[in-house]
Amino acid sequence: MIAVDWGGSSLRAYRLDAGGRIIEHRRSNDGALASHGRFSQVLGGLIEGWSERLVVLSGMIGARGGWIEMPYIDCPAGIGALAAGMRRLDADAPLAGHALWCVPGMADRGREAVDVMRGEETQIAGLLDTLGPGTHHLCLPGTHSKWVQVQDGSIVRISTAMTGELYGLLRRHSILGRTMPEHEPALDAAAFDAGLDDGGAGHGLLQDLFGVRTAALFERFATDALPSYLSGLLIGHELRAELASHAGVAVHLLGSDALLERYARALATLGVGVQRHPEELAATGMHLLARARGL
Amino acid sequence: MIAVDWGGSSLRAYRLDAGGRIIEHRRSNDGALASHGRFSQVLGGLIEGWSERLVVLSGMIGARGGWIEMPYIDCPAGIGALAAGMRRLDADAPLAGHALWCVPGMADRGREAVDVMRGEETQIAGLLDTLGPGTHHLCLPGTHSKWVQVQDGSIVRISTAMTGELYGLLRRHSILGRTMPEHEPALDAAAFDAGLDDGGAGHGLLQDLFGVRTAALFERFATDALPSYLSGLLIGHELRAELASHAGVAVHLLGSDALLERYARALATLGVGVQRHPEELAATGMHLLARARGL
Repeated sequence: MIAVDWGGSSLRAYRLDAGGRIIEHRRSNDGALASHGRFSQVLGGLIEGWSERLVVLSGMIGARGGWIEMPYIDCPAGIGALAAGMRRLDADAPLAGHALWCVPGMADRGREAVDVMRGEETQIAGLLDTLGPGTHHLCLPGTHSKWVQVQDGSIVRISTAMTGELYGLLRRHSILGRTMPEHEPALDAAAFDAGLDDGGAGHGLLQDLFGVRTAALFERFATDALPSYLSGLLIGHELRAELASHAGVAVHLLGSDALLERYARALATLGVGVQRHPEELAATGMHLLARARGL
Repeated sequence: MIAVDWGGSSLRAYRLDAGGRIIEHRRSNDGALASHGRFSQVLGGLIEGWSERLVVLSGMIGARGGWIEMPYIDCPAGIGALAAGMRRLDADAPLAGHALWCVPGMADRGREAVDVMRGEETQIAGLLDTLGPGTHHLCLPGTHSKWVQVQDGSIVRISTAMTGELYGLLRRHSILGRTMPEHEPALDAAAFDAGLDDGGAGHGLLQDLFGVRTAALFERFATDALPSYLSGLLIGHELRAELASHAGVAVHLLGSDALLERYARALATLGVGVQRHPEELAATGMHLLARARGL
């Protein structure tokens, strides 16, 4: 089968063998947003020459304004409920020989402010079997970091932190960004740790952010270290809010290496164990979901 | 004398009688940022025809990149220390008949992340005498909200929350702004209160912000009410962080009516008493500082 992880800003296609192992991998920057109106052409182009009939899609491609608006499956849900929520898509000419199926998103309606995810549930599906019984805490860092609680094979809670988006906004558009370099400098570990530490002093995030301004004003750090200080402050606030309800338990980190590095460092500093998992879990997840659906 | 409150984006000049009462008031949008390189001309134009010799300036005009870089006076400091920190400016032709003096800023170096203010110390100077002995909590809402603790006539603590700037960033540049109207709708009290309430549930601000996204997705509020919900969330987080150290004590609110309305409503909801003061306190403050300096 072919597994397609189609996010807002990128597109990854995996060709899998019958056992779900990745044989081939292709990617493009034709995210779901930029591909509007020409989804068949974009996907057809990317998987050209791959003859596997079954194609499973997940991610923002199933959002409102995407190829198909998929429903949100409510928590708690495991492989079975997600597989049951998959829907078939009609595809045009370049994909006529394929059978396309899309994975649903998930919603947590346990609080007044509902939380949701699209795509992350598929990565997690690829991990559910190996987690075993009991309660597990998963973190998928990103523009919108997802924190997910898994209990006995089911996703029971979703919490999203807008950490990555806020970092970008403050870098590009705020008074804090004005004293920072245009380029993204390498991580300055000391400044990152200082941000992590200051963020735990019990002040609010809105208050701590102004410390980036005065750090520049009083030259507490070199200019190139200021983004790392801001990053440490934001990630520190994200982690402490999430860990308040499950201190001491190891966290499973899923995602790309660069970002995982920062989160792993921050979690270790806070005394929390970490287990890392690769992004390709999405392919494993789609394979397991297709099998559960009997496709 | 003439008192000039010259902030980053606006300029207010007050003509005062010998007792410090305001006789006349003029304002312009020639903030300290936009007036760079032509400070004498801008001020000369605004106070044309006012013959008082003494002109006292305060605000961002005394920042780095302003007309004169004034030092920061450290906490604790009262009228005496602020007056002693005033410095005389040289002025060109249109202001040749005037003696110009600038008020210093203030810094709180009690924490690793230093906090500062410029301009607010002058508004507070106008209030110090009437506060009396004991501990008082002041809040000056704005792009950067200032929280100031006054003890027995001295400013002892400064805390800045970037609430207003973050609201603007999220409205204009984030995914949250995409589902909001371009214009700034009137306050929706129910949505504001819901934001205030949700912000107190113990989640982090980064997490709560995503609730604005899902509120739009699941149509929890009308589109025009979303900015009020966001405002309630942000102000709620600002207040709770500040009130953690002084719950139950009344807060003195200084500033413009529209913003004070929201802060007064939020503080009342949290069970905190409020006393309001007008922006014109800056003029009173400059009068008292000039007198203390013997000008």
